[in-house]
Parts: sequence; structure tokens; C-alpha cells
Amino acid sequence: LFDLKGIIPPLVTPFDQAGAVRYDFFERNIDQYLEAGIDGFLVVGSTGESVYLDHSEKLRLTEAARKRIPSSKMLLAGTGSESTQATIELTKEMADRGVDAVLVKNPFYYKSQMSFDVYMAHYTAVADASPVPVIVYNVPVFTGVPLESRLVIELAKHPNIRGMKDSSGDVRLISETVWNTDPGTFSVVAGTGATLLHTMTAGARGGIVALVCAAPRAMLQLYQAYVSSDHRKADAIQRIIAPAANAVTSKYGIPGLKYAMELEGFQPGIARRPLLPTKTAQQQDLQQIFRRMNSELSELS
Amino acid sequence: LFDLKGIIPPLVTPFDQAGAVRYDFFERNIDQYLEAGIDGFLVVGSTGESVYLDHSEKLRLTEAARKRIPSSKMLLAGTGSESTQATIELTKEMADRGVDAVLVKNPFYYKSQMSFDVYMAHYTAVADASPVPVIVYNVPVFTGVPLESRLVIELAKHPNIRGMKDSSGDVRLISETVWNTDPGTFSVVAGTGATLLHTMTAGARGGIVALVCAAPRAMLQLYQAYVSSDHRKADAIQRIIAPAANAVTSKYGIPGLKYAMELEGFQPGIARRPLLPTKTAQQQDLQQIFRRMNSELSELS
Amino acid sequence: LFDLKGIIPPLVTPFDQAGAVRYDFFERNIDQYLEAGIDGFLVVGSTGESVYLDHSEKLRLTEAARKRIPSSKMLLAGTGSESTQATIELTKEMADRGVDAVLVKNPFYYKSQMSFDVYMAHYTAVADASPVPVIVYNVPVFTGVPLESRLVIELAKHPNIRGMKDSSGDVRLISETVWNTDPGTFSVVAGTGATLLHTMTAGARGGIVALVCAAPRAMLQLYQAYVSSDHRKADAIQRIIAPAANAVTSKYGIPGLKYAMELEGFQPGIARRPLLPTKTAQQQDLQQIFRRMNSELSELS
Amino acid sequence: LFDLKGIIPPLVTPFDQAGAVRYDFFERNIDQYLEAGIDGFLVVGSTGESVYLDHSEKLRLTEAARKRIPSSKMLLAGTGSESTQATIELTKEMADRGVDAVLVKNPFYYKSQMSFDVYMAHYTAVADASPVPVIVYNVPVFTGVPLESRLVIELAKHPNIRGMKDSSGDVRLISETVWNTDPGTFSVVAGTGATLLHTMTAGARGGIVALVCAAPRAMLQLYQAYVSSDHRKADAIQRIIAPAANAVTSKYGIPGLKYAMELEGFQPGIARRPLLPTKTAQQQDLQQIFRRMNSELSELS
Repeated sequence: LFDLKGIIPPLVTPFDQAGAVRYDFFERNIDQYLEAGIDGFLVVGSTGESVYLDHSEKLRLTEAARKRIPSSKMLLAGTGSESTQATIELTKEMADRGVDAVLVKNPFYYKSQMSFDVYMAHYTAVADASPVPVIVYNVPVFTGVPLESRLVIELAKHPNIRGMKDSSGDVRLISETVWNTDPGTFSVVAGTGATLLHTMTAGARGGIVALVCAAPRAMLQLYQAYVSSDHRKADAIQRIIAPAANAVTSKYGIPGLKYAMELEGFQPGIARRPLLPTKTAQQQDLQQIFRRMNSELSELS
Repeated sequence: LFDLKGIIPPLVTPFDQAGAVRYDFFERNIDQYLEAGIDGFLVVGSTGESVYLDHSEKLRLTEAARKRIPSSKMLLAGTGSESTQATIELTKEMADRGVDAVLVKNPFYYKSQMSFDVYMAHYTAVADASPVPVIVYNVPVFTGVPLESRLVIELAKHPNIRGMKDSSGDVRLISETVWNTDPGTFSVVAGTGATLLHTMTAGARGGIVALVCAAPRAMLQLYQAYVSSDHRKADAIQRIIAPAANAVTSKYGIPGLKYAMELEGFQPGIARRPLLPTKTAQQQDLQQIFRRMNSELSELS
Repeated sequence: LFDLKGIIPPLVTPFDQAGAVRYDFFERNIDQYLEAGIDGFLVVGSTGESVYLDHSEKLRLTEAARKRIPSSKMLLAGTGSESTQATIELTKEMADRGVDAVLVKNPFYYKSQMSFDVYMAHYTAVADASPVPVIVYNVPVFTGVPLESRLVIELAKHPNIRGMKDSSGDVRLISETVWNTDPGTFSVVAGTGATLLHTMTAGARGGIVALVCAAPRAMLQLYQAYVSSDHRKADAIQRIIAPAANAVTSKYGIPGLKYAMELEGFQPGIARRPLLPTKTAQQQDLQQIFRRMNSELSELS
Repeated sequence: LFDLKGIIPPLVTPFDQAGAVRYDFFERNIDQYLEAGIDGFLVVGSTGESVYLDHSEKLRLTEAARKRIPSSKMLLAGTGSESTQATIELTKEMADRGVDAVLVKNPFYYKSQMSFDVYMAHYTAVADASPVPVIVYNVPVFTGVPLESRLVIELAKHPNIRGMKDSSGDVRLISETVWNTDPGTFSVVAGTGATLLHTMTAGARGGIVALVCAAPRAMLQLYQAYVSSDHRKADAIQRIIAPAANAVTSKYGIPGLKYAMELEGFQPGIARRPLLPTKTAQQQDLQQIFRRMNSELSELS
């Protein structure tokens, strides 16, 4: 039975200097996450630079991930496109490749036209057509169009719409959604590492957050402390990781995350253009942030 | 010793049809809150329509409140003005009238000029001159200029800056501030009723929220459930009150709050112009929201 | 020699009920614009629902347009994608199909990372690789990331960056750009029909605006009145067309434009999902707006 | 007869180091503007730091201005406050002191409540009560709440609402307003120096812009070139002054304007706190901008 929860890395897509995908790096990262104890994965999401991938790369990354990840462990794929039809087609292709659910961000380009009715019709059509559960993805920092709890609550009535990933960090949206949806069929996960604990206390059941890619063990510790009601420890870890969580998202973006992953022994490659690599001063800041995080985490145990 | 925490109503200013302050209503409301068990108050805040009050009205309201409220109970007053000098003068006058601390929202009119340096100099000058502790007030929904955790953390080093009221509901700002300030000398309280529980789990030690004016007992119950670690009950109450908390702020504003107070047996008067009274359909919505809240709260106990 | 100016329709892409492109409708519209005297065209732009088109549709639409449009008349194609490499590839394919220049909107998804340096590197790489002139496209209403005059002025120094389409209607951006670029090699065209005249007086040399698709003759009259310095007539036409220009963009979007085109005797088909067709009340409003516009235009002559 | 047009300085309020108003400086500046040929003035506006002035200072500045400015020349005063009643009272006091009209910015603090109806009622009440004509003031950069053309067009039907000052620079708002209001009783003036010419071609009949305080002669030349249809010269002057116009508003704010006024031989004093004086690097930039502007202007004649 599909149950969205836990600590899930939104896998990065490693590129070489020429901009080609390094599938070998991609697979090695998955292996490292499995070793760390991760049992849910997302491919082709925003952190995976999905907007820079072509159609065949998206499929091949998903195939590679599914081959590597035991079927007992959850694999999600991002399929949200601007057009309803393109979203449905990619969703079906991903389902054919064995993903357990799809993550569908809202279309947003024609902002003034993106009404409640447009979103209801879009998500309903996708969920009707999808062979696998659909997870709504709210990420206004990229789309510029936040979803309202009223919409998500209505969408959650569809039997094939089974959750929301929220990257706004808005505890009001999360709590209103959780309060007004059936916990047996719908769950919310957070997309913001710096406030993961607080969004979990507001009802989120885990997180799909960038920092997991660079610090999977710390994030699993945070989650386990929370679910075992060790609030003191959960709070301590959340506090320790917050600067790193900010650094690999709002502060330095994907290039920052990839640099941090390298520091932590992963194979991230570089970002695709137009994204530019981190500069020396940014790298030094990242080094310091991660050194301090690691030191504080080891003192904790 | 000054210790900012607990459930605090931001007192409304009752006006009659001609726009005059009804001090008798104002005092009667305070009496009712005291009876309900409230032991901290704010006068002349945003909910008190401070921007519609003249200087002598602000002083007289504060005097009336102080006279009514035992000295063992905390009285705060809003004194944030656009000019540093005006803020200092009002702060001193309020201190003379016996307030325990002042709430100072950031100046914001010349938005592009409101830099870190400007805010550091402004708050430092106010805190240096103030005979009573200063509480920073972050309310971007009205000011349009959110404060950053970096600034608040720096301000908290001043011995006379003793807390922040945050009405943004941003759990990242709250948690970063709490983690990086001395809990012995600085505390955060929330300004958002719909997420009070979640902001408390992020580190806020209470709330100065509009809904307290209409439902003081429910808010005290929520707070007591939280501080006694009855998370199930706290979550249930938070859920029950959320629609009312939204209705008296973002949805219907001060006219909505005043109508709700009337429903609940208080003496709110009406709002000053340009604010217009609630319309019939809004009143019906408010009636339904409060009826349902009260019914669910009584089932709970 | 490439010279960006005049009145240019951003061609709509007609779809049937099943969502398939009606190339026959597309071609017939072009014929009608040629008859009306139009001598510049844009395919695969925002108004052409480019974000809902797949790669082969984009190419086929461009081929169809080029076949229909005499080589003496200008054909532009939108090629701006999120990734630099994808933008370059599509640009080359479009150039192979005979377009005279490409319109490249800025990448925008990872908003916080879209720095001056990122944009300089992106546009420089595209312009270096493009066999045809590049036109920068500023459309913050869709991208959420406005371009600054400082950036555009710098980009205009590249010999293959030959113009900007501005859909913000910001006369300060337009005038600063025009003042600081070489009129022999760089020109600005407007993307906003409701203020076309005002942006031309600020330095724009024409417009690529949605209303041209529904009212090509009126827009040509406005342009001719302006270039022949008949300011009174230009102002009168601008005033008459403004409500229609708003109706087919900010007010009712592409579904509104397509309905208006149908009213005016074109073959727009319908919009692709998630866009929903106009509702009856919207259609009545559009009918009234266009009836009034046509009546006032005929009184004018 | 009241006729709003021409080049009008929004007078700065000079303060000394202790924050006291220097009325002598204020008067000397007026004398210099009169000598330069200015025949319309605004006191107690946003550029005059009205939000930092107390009630008696506002009145005394207005009295001082009226005494200095011949009754044949127009004097306007800013009176827009958050409360309707306070706006009316100040308006009457200003009228008693001989101002020809009042400039009333929209109340904006309780943003979500500032509906069409609220604004209609507010401005109608003010205009009904005012002994002098009322000018609506749209300045979203400070208020955060832009006015819509629909509202302004409706307000313009009131016999005592006689114009709008627009500081948004939105040519669509200006043109729609001008097209739909009676030019005999209502006029628009611009509040943006960097686009003054373009807003005049969109229908504005002049400007109340910060740069007039530092460069009255240049602004008068621009205006005279425009009204005498010397478009080439008007365009040349507009181009030359644009960097200075930006520098004394969006770039460096009132401290920048005051520094520039000093450079140009006026007596601006300093800004009131919390505004901080310009830093050395900013002063050097301002020096260069004004030196270049003056040199280019002298070459022009």
C-alpha cells in the first residue's frame, strides 16, 4: 500500500563538464543512500534539475534508479509539465518504468489564468489517467503561484491524489491541509530542511529535502528522534542542520548543494548551464558550515 | 523581572458611530479578560487601530488600561512610529504611565532605504533611551518589510531589547531567532493565531493574537495544554480555533474581529473609518464559524 | 539586413478539441495577416502556447510559417528554454528552417540563482552559437524575473544580440535601454498593446502584441499614424483599442484572445489544457468590447 | 481656477543635526525656486519626510511656504493620513493656511481591507469635507497598495476631486485615467522624474518629482521643450537627467536627494532618523552623476 512518509532525497542529476549526464555517478549516489538507510527516493525533481533534462534523459534516469532501488523501497518521479497532456504522458511512461507515485507541480506559466477551476481540472485529469498515485507539489519559490489549502483539500478527495509535497514551509497551509484530509489516504511531506521538525509538528510525515542528498544520516537521525518522541534530540539536530539546509537551497542553490555533496563524499558532478559553479568564497562558506554541522552532530551522540 | 510569554490580547479600541473612543467599553473588556484568567495585555497595537489614534488617545487608553490592570500583570504598549525621535518620545510617555515594555514595529515607509544599518541604528537608539524593555515587532503583512533573523539576532544582544513579536508565522525566522538568542533575556511570541501551536513548537513562548480578544478562554486552554505537554489536546484545540483565527485577521480584518467580539459578549464598538463594518454575508459566515468553534470546544472537554 | 520593427502578430497555435494542432487553421491565419499588410511574424512565442508544444510541433509550425511567408517578410521564432544547451539546439534548428531571428526569454525557474553573471553567460553562449540574430525577451508577468536595463545594455554589445521585446510596459526600462544602445544594431519592440503608443514614444520601434492576432488592421493603422507623426490619430486609435488589448491579455488570457479572433473572422481553434475556454459572461464582455472598438474605429476614418 | 499642471518641487524639509526643522533653510530654498521660475509647490509630501513630521511642524511649514509664495502661484500640501477623520481635519487646517489643493495618498496599513468600497468612501468623505480641491496620490513604492484606474476614474466624477499624482510610472494607469476623465476638471501629474517625458506623452500634464528640488531649471527646460513640441530637445533633456532622477529616488532616497541639493547650491539640511546620511562612495557617485548631467545640459544649449 502506498504510504508517503519518511526521509527522501530528491536525487541530483550529475553532469560532466560537457553537460552530459553521468549515470554512473547517479547510481553510486543511490548506493550510498541505501547504505545510509534511506528507503524512499525522488528522481527528476526540481533538485534534479528536471527543467534542464530532455525527455529521454528523464526516462533513463528513472530506469537507472528503479534498477538500483529494491522494489520494497519507494521511488517517486517528478512529472509535472505545463500542459495537462504532456503531464499525463510522462506520468504513464514513468509508471511503466516502475515508479510508485508521481510528483506533479502545478502548471504556472500563464499565472493570471491559473484559477481554482483550472487546477481542479488539470489535477483531476492527471489523477484519472495515472496508473500510480499522484502527489501534488507546491513550490512557489520556483513557480511563483502558491497553492491554497482550499484547493489541496478538494483535490485530496480524489482517490488517486494521495499526498502533497510542500516546499513553502507554510505551517498554516500544512496544518489546514492535514486537518481537513483523510490521514489514511493522504499525507503531506515537507520540502524545507531548515524547518523540517516544525513542519512535522504541524502534520507533515517526513521530508523530501535537498539536504538529504548531502547529509542523509543526519536527516534520518532527526526523523527517528522525532518519531520516537525524543523532542530534545530532534530539536538539537534540527538546530544543527539548519544553516546547512539554508546553504544548499535559498543561499547557494543547486551549485551549492552539489559542492556540499562533494565535500561529503558523494558524486554530484556539476550543474547544467545556465547555472554557474559556486565561487571560491561560497565554497569556503560551505566548508565551514558543513565542518561545524558535522562537529556538532558528533558531539551530540 | 520582565518575562515575555503567555496569552496576551492585543486590545481593540472601541469607537462609537461618531468615531469617538468608548473608554467604558475598553475597560469593561479588560475586566472580562481578567476574569477569564488573562495576565498580560497589549494596548495601542495594530489590532487596537493604533494608526487611527491620535497622541492623546494613545496615552489615555494606556492610562485607563494600567489603572484597570493590577501591577502584577503585564501591560505592553505599541510605540513604533516612522521617526526614531517620535518612537522614543512615545516610549518614554508610555513608560511614565506604567507599561512594562513597549512593542516597536519597524519603520517601513521609505522601503528601499530600510537597510540593516538603518534598523540597527533605529532600534539601538530606541532601546538606549527607553526606560522599559523593548520588543521588536515583525508584521510584514502591514509594513511590507519583513525583518530578517540576522537582524533580530543582532538586536537581541542589546540588554534592553528583550523579545520579538512575530506576525509573519515564519517558523524559520522564529526558530533561527530562538536558537541564536539567550533564552534568559530574549523571547519570541507569535502574532498568528491560526498557527500558534506550531510557532510555539518552533520556540515561541506564547502569542499576542487577535483571536484572544474574542475567545480568551479557548486560547488559554490551548496554551495550558501545550505547556503541560498535552499535545493531543493542544492539537485538537488549535485545529478547532484555526478557522476563527483566520476569520478575524486575514479574512475579515478588524471589522470581523469586532463583530466576533460582539457575538462572544464583549464591547468592541465599531472600527474607525476608512474601515467599513462587516456586511451581512460576512456576519453570517462569522456566526457559523464561531458557533462551530464553540460547539467543538465544548465537546472536547 | 536585420531590422526589428513594425507590427508583428505573435501567432497563436490553433488546437482542436482533442488537443491536436490544426496546421490548416494556422496557415489560413497567416494568409489573412498577409492580406491585411502584415510583414513580420512570430511563431512559437508565449501567445503561441509554446510551453504546451512539443519539440516536433515547434519545428513543424515554423516550417509551415516559413513556407507561407515570403522570404522578404520577417519570421521570428521563440527558442528560449531553461537550459542553455536546449536553447542553442532549438535556435539552430529554427535557423535551419529559415527564421530571420530568434526570441529568447530568460531562464527563470531557479529564481534566486538568476544573477547578472548567469544571464550574461547564458545569452552570450546562445548568441555566439546562433546562426541568426538573437532578441532578448523580457516578460516578467510570466517568468517572475524582470530583466534590468543594466543587463540588456551590456548584452546589446554582443554583435549577434540585436534587440529586446519588452512585455513589462516599463517605459523606464525601454528608454534607458534605447538611450544606451546603438540604434543601428539594436532595437526594442513592445509586447504590450494597451500602451503601444507610449512605449513607442519611449523608443520602441513597434510591437509584437497579442491584439495584432485579432485586429491586425487597427494595429497597422496605429503604427502608421505614429510613424507619419499624426499624433492625434495615433492617440485616438490607441485609446480605442486599449480595452481590447487588455481583454485579450491580462483580463482573459489566451482563451480570451482565441475567442476574440473567432469573432473577428480568424481560425484560432481552442487553447490546450490546462487552459479552459472562456465562459459565457466573458464571451459577452469580449463581444461588447470588440463591437465598440470596431464601431469607434470606423467612425474615426 | 484650479488647474494642476507644470513643474512642481515636492519641497524637502531641512533638519539640523539635532533633528529640528530649519525653517530658514526651507524658505531660502523656496526663494531659489521662485527665481528659477517655478510656479507651483508641494509641502509636507513624501519627499518632505511627512511621516517624520508632527502636526505642528506640518502646519508651520505650510504657513511658512504660503507666506513666501505669491498667491498667484500654486501651493499644495500633503494631508493623507491613515484615518479618514484625521485626513479631513488636517485638510481643513491646511486650507485655512491658504493651500490651493491637498494631495491625499491612500490609507494602506490594513492592506487586505483596502477595498474599492473603502477607498470610495474614504475619498468621498474627504472631498465632501475639503474646502479646497483634492488630488489623489498613488505611490505604491511606499504604500504597497497601487490604485487601479477603475477607482480613479470613479473618484474623478466627484466635483472636488481634481487630479491624481502618480508615482508608479505606469503609463497604462495614466493613459486609461486620462482617457476616461474630463480634462476640464481632472488632470494627472507624474511623480517619476526618470520617465517624466513618457508619462506626459501618456497624458500627464507635468510632474511633482524629487529631482526638481535639486535641478529646477533643467526640469523646467524639459517641460517647456515638451509643451512647445520640441520633441528632439525634450527627449535629449529627459535622457540627460534620467540618471540623476534615479539617483535621488530609488537609488539613494531622500538622503541622496539632500546631498545632491547641497551640491547644487540649495539648503537641504539632513534627513531625520531613522534615515542615515549618504556614505562617501554614494556621495562620489552623486557628484559624478550631477557633474555629467550639468555638463551635458550646458552642451545642449
